[in-house]
Amino acid sequence: MLELRLVQGNLLKKVLEAVKDLVTDANFDCSSTGFSLQAMDSSHVALVALLLRSEGFEHYRCDRNVSMGMNLNNMAKMLKCAGNDDIVTIKADDGSDTVTFMFESPNQDKIADFEMKLMDIDSEHLGIPEAEYHAIVRMPSSEFARICKDLSSIGDTVVISVTKEGVKFSTRGDIGMQTLFAGKTPLSTRYMNSFTKATPLSSTVTISLSSELPVVVEYKIAEMGYIRFYLAPKIEDEEEDVKP
Amino acid sequence: MLELRLVQGNLLKKVLEAVKDLVTDANFDCSSTGFSLQAMDSSHVALVALLLRSEGFEHYRCDRNVSMGMNLNNMAKMLKCAGNDDIVTIKADDGSDTVTFMFESPNQDKIADFEMKLMDIDSEHLGIPEAEYHAIVRMPSSEFARICKDLSSIGDTVVISVTKEGVKFSTRGDIGMQTLFAGKTPLSTRYMNSFTKATPLSSTVTISLSSELPVVVEYKIAEMGYIRFYLAPKIEDEEEDVKP
Amino acid sequence: MLELRLVQGNLLKKVLEAVKDLVTDANFDCSSTGFSLQAMDSSHVALVALLLRSEGFEHYRCDRNVSMGMNLNNMAKMLKCAGNDDIVTIKADDGSDTVTFMFESPNQDKIADFEMKLMDIDSEHLGIPEAEYHAIVRMPSSEFARICKDLSSIGDTVVISVTKEGVKFSTRGDIGMQTLFAGKTPLSTRYMNSFTKATPLSSTVTISLSSELPVVVEYKIAEMGYIRFYLAPKIEDEEEDVKP
Repeated sequence: MLELRLVQGNLLKKVLEAVKDLVTDANFDCSSTGFSLQAMDSSHVALVALLLRSEGFEHYRCDRNVSMGMNLNNMAKMLKCAGNDDIVTIKADDGSDTVTFMFESPNQDKIADFEMKLMDIDSEHLGIPEAEYHAIVRMPSSEFARICKDLSSIGDTVVISVTKEGVKFSTRGDIGMQTLFAGKTPLSTRYMNSFTKATPLSSTVTISLSSELPVVVEYKIAEMGYIRFYLAPKIEDEEEDVKP
Repeated sequence: MLELRLVQGNLLKKVLEAVKDLVTDANFDCSSTGFSLQAMDSSHVALVALLLRSEGFEHYRCDRNVSMGMNLNNMAKMLKCAGNDDIVTIKADDGSDTVTFMFESPNQDKIADFEMKLMDIDSEHLGIPEAEYHAIVRMPSSEFARICKDLSSIGDTVVISVTKEGVKFSTRGDIGMQTLFAGKTPLSTRYMNSFTKATPLSSTVTISLSSELPVVVEYKIAEMGYIRFYLAPKIEDEEEDVKP
Repeated sequence: MLELRLVQGNLLKKVLEAVKDLVTDANFDCSSTGFSLQAMDSSHVALVALLLRSEGFEHYRCDRNVSMGMNLNNMAKMLKCAGNDDIVTIKADDGSDTVTFMFESPNQDKIADFEMKLMDIDSEHLGIPEAEYHAIVRMPSSEFARICKDLSSIGDTVVISVTKEGVKFSTRGDIGMQTLFAGKTPLSTRYMNSFTKATPLSSTVTISLSSELPVVVEYKIAEMGYIRFYLAPKIEDEEEDVKP
């Protein structure tokens, strides 16, 4: 028996909006510690890790660990039917192949029930080792979103350079313009831009960088957990550089 | 000679927005009692009935009953040129094949005239008998619009069940989810959703239900009349139920 | 050496938005008097003339006259990356084939550099003689924009008639409607509508008319200059009138 009651139901809406363009189908894992998800995007370039700790739920009952496979687009579509102030309860019976989402308006005058079929999804859980990062940048998430949007309109890759003076984002585009290039490993602007869909979840974002490790873009979810995006550097196609 | 002066000209804009996606061409009927329209949608599933009573107009002159056939899309396009505070006057000479719409801004500093050709449209006026309904639901029109939008994103039909405790809207979709189904006659969510285009006309909507009759969705137009939508239950395709 | 520092950087954004749909590539001319542009649209029907006087810049250094060819769409795309309060500096070295745009946020905590390749664009500079106009109309630019939008949704040409009583805009469309036609030279509603993209630059617009001259639609740019659009009357295709 699983029953998770989340008063801030729109957190779940925001989480789905942040993830659904990156990942199509994914397993949500429930255990006594929390409700979590770990999934690679379809190109196996980026990894999403979500954790909503059990303490953040008003009521959290999870008798045994379950993994529930869901289509994130369908889940997002369904969550669109929840009001922004609605309380969301996730319910599943042991061994059942369905999950029920219940939306209650704050004054209890409206209740909606959605039953969704679960899917069997193969996935391996990657162990992400704790790492030491050379640079950690904390900045307003809205500003980061704006920078990613601007850069992605101009070039395909971004280079993030961190010095004691500040952080520099650089790109180079085929419309004949560029910004300063600092020779660091390039990251995909498309992915970075996609990660900023999590902006509504937190007013700040933390970017952790190390020359040998994937970059980590983390949005804290107030008093509940986090959503983290891991992105490996983009391997530049060498032949591209040979062009006249 | 016909001359109808409507101070709240944007009522007419809202009426057209509510009707134009359902009905392409229609006759507007003018008599001493008012300005009205009755039309079936192109699939002959839904019926729209509009009445704007003569008392609601600042000036209402209609020497003899006339029926003016108009293309509702063109009419809506033209009414988009009227400001929201504009006074709209509809004028037609006896026997003329054109109608003129005049838009005056409240301070009279802007006047626009539009002459539109009338069309010959075959239509029979259905007598709608007064009926006793088993259940009448009055609810905020914005909430009804939201429910119809949510339901139509999930399933094709809606079942409305009314009990002493409240009203329940249920749907069932192919993305593997459903809500409770109560065995009543199903209605098309697409049509219900389309009716909610009339939401700007009234803050409340009245839904009248009876097991043997079309459902009636009515929006009152303040001090002037109403717009009513009639929808017959959807005949379920039996073969659909046979699918594995 | 060229270095132009414009504190109101968003003026440049608005100018580009006003011009980019009309003109694809154009030369920006810099001299000691100011930063200017003159270009025909691709159909050679309308002419745009822009002037930003040197006094309007916080810093203006232009050692010798230069003409910088740019693709206006790329330039607009790049300027979208400037914040609305950003200070924009345009820099070019003598003989260089690139131009650099620098965006500084007001509190200097964000700086962006864009280097853009210049293009070779053939263009002849037309001398526009000073002319006496028979009628000059000054009106709120937002109202003019609304009128052009309304008219262009109905007909292809607009006739502007000016009398001592006021100004009248008339059009005639194929959906069977028309407004009063006063027998003056017709102008293209599409172009007139396009000119109104300059609306954010000024709260008033000045329309200068003469029966033998192109109409001039002018938006003043506060304390800096102007953007002017010249449009020749539309030659009516006589065969169109022969249609039954």
